[in-house]
Amino acid sequence: MSEPTDIGESLAATSRRRFLRKGGALVGGIVVAGGLAGSEAAAATENTDNLPPNVPEWMKTPGDPMGSQLYGTPSPFEKDVVKNIPKNLPQYLSASGRTPLQDLDGIITPNGLFYERHHGGVPAIDPEQHRLMLHGLVDKPLIFTMEDIRRFPSQSHIYFLECSGNPGYKKPYGKTASDLVGLLSCAEWTGVSLKLVLQEAGLQAGAKWVIAEGADAAAVTRSIPIEKCLEDAMLVYSQNGERLRPQQGYPLRLLLPGFEGNMSIKWLRRLHVAAEPSYSREETSKYTDLMPDGSAREFTFFMEAKSIITRPSGGQRLTSPGFHEISGIAWSGRGKIGRVDVSVDDGKSWQEAQLQEPVLTRALTRFRLPWHWDGQPAVIQSRAIDQTGYVQPTLAELLAVRGENYFYHNNAIWPWRISAGGEVTNANA
Amino acid sequence: MSEPTDIGESLAATSRRRFLRKGGALVGGIVVAGGLAGSEAAAATENTDNLPPNVPEWMKTPGDPMGSQLYGTPSPFEKDVVKNIPKNLPQYLSASGRTPLQDLDGIITPNGLFYERHHGGVPAIDPEQHRLMLHGLVDKPLIFTMEDIRRFPSQSHIYFLECSGNPGYKKPYGKTASDLVGLLSCAEWTGVSLKLVLQEAGLQAGAKWVIAEGADAAAVTRSIPIEKCLEDAMLVYSQNGERLRPQQGYPLRLLLPGFEGNMSIKWLRRLHVAAEPSYSREETSKYTDLMPDGSAREFTFFMEAKSIITRPSGGQRLTSPGFHEISGIAWSGRGKIGRVDVSVDDGKSWQEAQLQEPVLTRALTRFRLPWHWDGQPAVIQSRAIDQTGYVQPTLAELLAVRGENYFYHNNAIWPWRISAGGEVTNANA
Repeated sequence: MSEPTDIGESLAATSRRRFLRKGGALVGGIVVAGGLAGSEAAAATENTDNLPPNVPEWMKTPGDPMGSQLYGTPSPFEKDVVKNIPKNLPQYLSASGRTPLQDLDGIITPNGLFYERHHGGVPAIDPEQHRLMLHGLVDKPLIFTMEDIRRFPSQSHIYFLECSGNPGYKKPYGKTASDLVGLLSCAEWTGVSLKLVLQEAGLQAGAKWVIAEGADAAAVTRSIPIEKCLEDAMLVYSQNGERLRPQQGYPLRLLLPGFEGNMSIKWLRRLHVAAEPSYSREETSKYTDLMPDGSAREFTFFMEAKSIITRPSGGQRLTSPGFHEISGIAWSGRGKIGRVDVSVDDGKSWQEAQLQEPVLTRALTRFRLPWHWDGQPAVIQSRAIDQTGYVQPTLAELLAVRGENYFYHNNAIWPWRISAGGEVTNANA
Repeated sequence: MSEPTDIGESLAATSRRRFLRKGGALVGGIVVAGGLAGSEAAAATENTDNLPPNVPEWMKTPGDPMGSQLYGTPSPFEKDVVKNIPKNLPQYLSASGRTPLQDLDGIITPNGLFYERHHGGVPAIDPEQHRLMLHGLVDKPLIFTMEDIRRFPSQSHIYFLECSGNPGYKKPYGKTASDLVGLLSCAEWTGVSLKLVLQEAGLQAGAKWVIAEGADAAAVTRSIPIEKCLEDAMLVYSQNGERLRPQQGYPLRLLLPGFEGNMSIKWLRRLHVAAEPSYSREETSKYTDLMPDGSAREFTFFMEAKSIITRPSGGQRLTSPGFHEISGIAWSGRGKIGRVDVSVDDGKSWQEAQLQEPVLTRALTRFRLPWHWDGQPAVIQSRAIDQTGYVQPTLAELLAVRGENYFYHNNAIWPWRISAGGEVTNANA
């Protein structure tokens, strides 16, 4: 691996040169005259295509008045930035809507674009009627209203959430970053420490699992090891400041940072403290992996370190050679991202990317690398290394170990192919 | 000031006691029988009001299918959590919509509830047609398309944004936290370093100010000291992951971390590098403060350290004595929050609140203090101390210095009065 890139130096070598050159070409003929008000600025140039309208139409009349949106929505010009919903999914078994990662910046996913995945549709729950029951191997079984839950001390954390089949191992995988890993989002969650709630009830000897049940039509049920429940598990009622969206479990969900998404039971109605797991549908028939030797890999829990370049990525196009920032996201269920390497030469060499601060545990981490594209075909890819030292593997490495029957927990490196024309496509498809 | 509260000890003394007591009362008669499936759980109690429906209605039929919302919206049960828009505002002069801070958790404001403030309505700008012109005391005047701006290296930061009249000094101030300081929000912003863009153009000797102009019907114009432009100013195109909302400057805005909000020019179309400020309407007639001696305080820029308790806060009600978490937000335009003190005895004594990590510079910081309310009338309040050591003042202290003609830059401590019945009201009204 090469030395870390000095971003300032690299900019001097690529970005600044490119922009100065382009700047010169764009505005070489401009003469700017007049005062400070927009209507007074006059300009003359040989290339009028790139001039701002002297006074654009939207400055000539007042815009939309206050109150036209009591709850705001995106610009109509962004109407194509919506959830990515695969066609022909069995609606009440494996419905999923993916976050359009290739259109997003930073690490926070806006609530309107947060990925969704459900097994029995989205229930419309009245929070006044909702109850959470906590029972089993506890001294005092308890039933909570939402007001009771809100009375507990609160905490807020930024965590990612990811479906374990993101993507599955089955070809053709998909064309865009969203097709590949769009069952992934990140938000600031607010709620209550599950540990505190369990302590209220009093755990009894032999309490090894907590079986969580959702109040949807599928009553999705998962068994959580007691260690996770006492570490960082939360009962969550808010997401990015406001109350949970219905698709994310309104009014109450479990949140298990770093664990596969389906374990963070939505519409949470019941916690049963037990000595054994429940062996529910979602941990036997589903979300387990068939190994080459015929055994089943079960209770895998952690989402391992992973990353993807979102810009440039599949479906996008580089319009000209020159400076392009490579930007993407990395995450690990094991903790913080330690480093992200980027290759622009089909894996022959790797450079260390810059990580956007703050790097938070079990949250998305944005990485960036300045790059000068010479206009030749290229393959670009990223690999995440987490704080444990684990290195994101290639797809070939994973397939060699896991075989062809595997479906979940695909955390392979995902390369993008860039053609001489600048088209970006999935290099593994 | 008393010693910092040990949150564990305090919980032992208040929260746990309260919850155990309440838990006992709530669920004392419950017998839980049956297996793991929701339909098998049977319960008997003297107080059936608090029991969960054995199988609630929303589990009996499939919920909403995938795709009913390509861009999600909140639960219908949250329909009252919307922007707080004062009545009878002159629409095209001082329109404002406030964030409902008392209903939010954490530090991120969801984009749909981000505060808005505009002077000529919200323009509907086609990003393909939008241009940014950079001219004046530069070597190369430049005109940028949005694609040009997106080609620059990017950065993301979580920063608050606050209007300088939040609230004004004029009574009656308001009833809720939103009425008082709802012209305040916080988001993760992504864009380009303004310093980098200025360097592309090449600053000339004598460049002391950058005059920024918006593409709205009011052509809102402000003068920014060059030092700020070269420190942390950004040209922003995304907010909480997605592109800016129209109300926040789509497709491009200036962002000046920690400076009064109106300087972060929205719908940014022009940057004029100059030797002198423009003395525009928004920095002479408006956003200046008339001092008791008749002089005008101008170019104040920084929003000083400030905080407010959002829960419990005006308009809310404590339904019973016992444990209540006090939670609020603190912020400073000067940098990080160093400490937040909370008083529950009308300012006689203060306790140090717990700060939610990570504490970020020029971002909201969530603070919390466990509290046992004894059911007696009380006055609660918070005061922020920032990393410079500056202490948020009382309203009386501010009025003594600034007099009665002052309007903007009110960063006073704001106390809430709690009645014996639990009603929370503005103690300064």
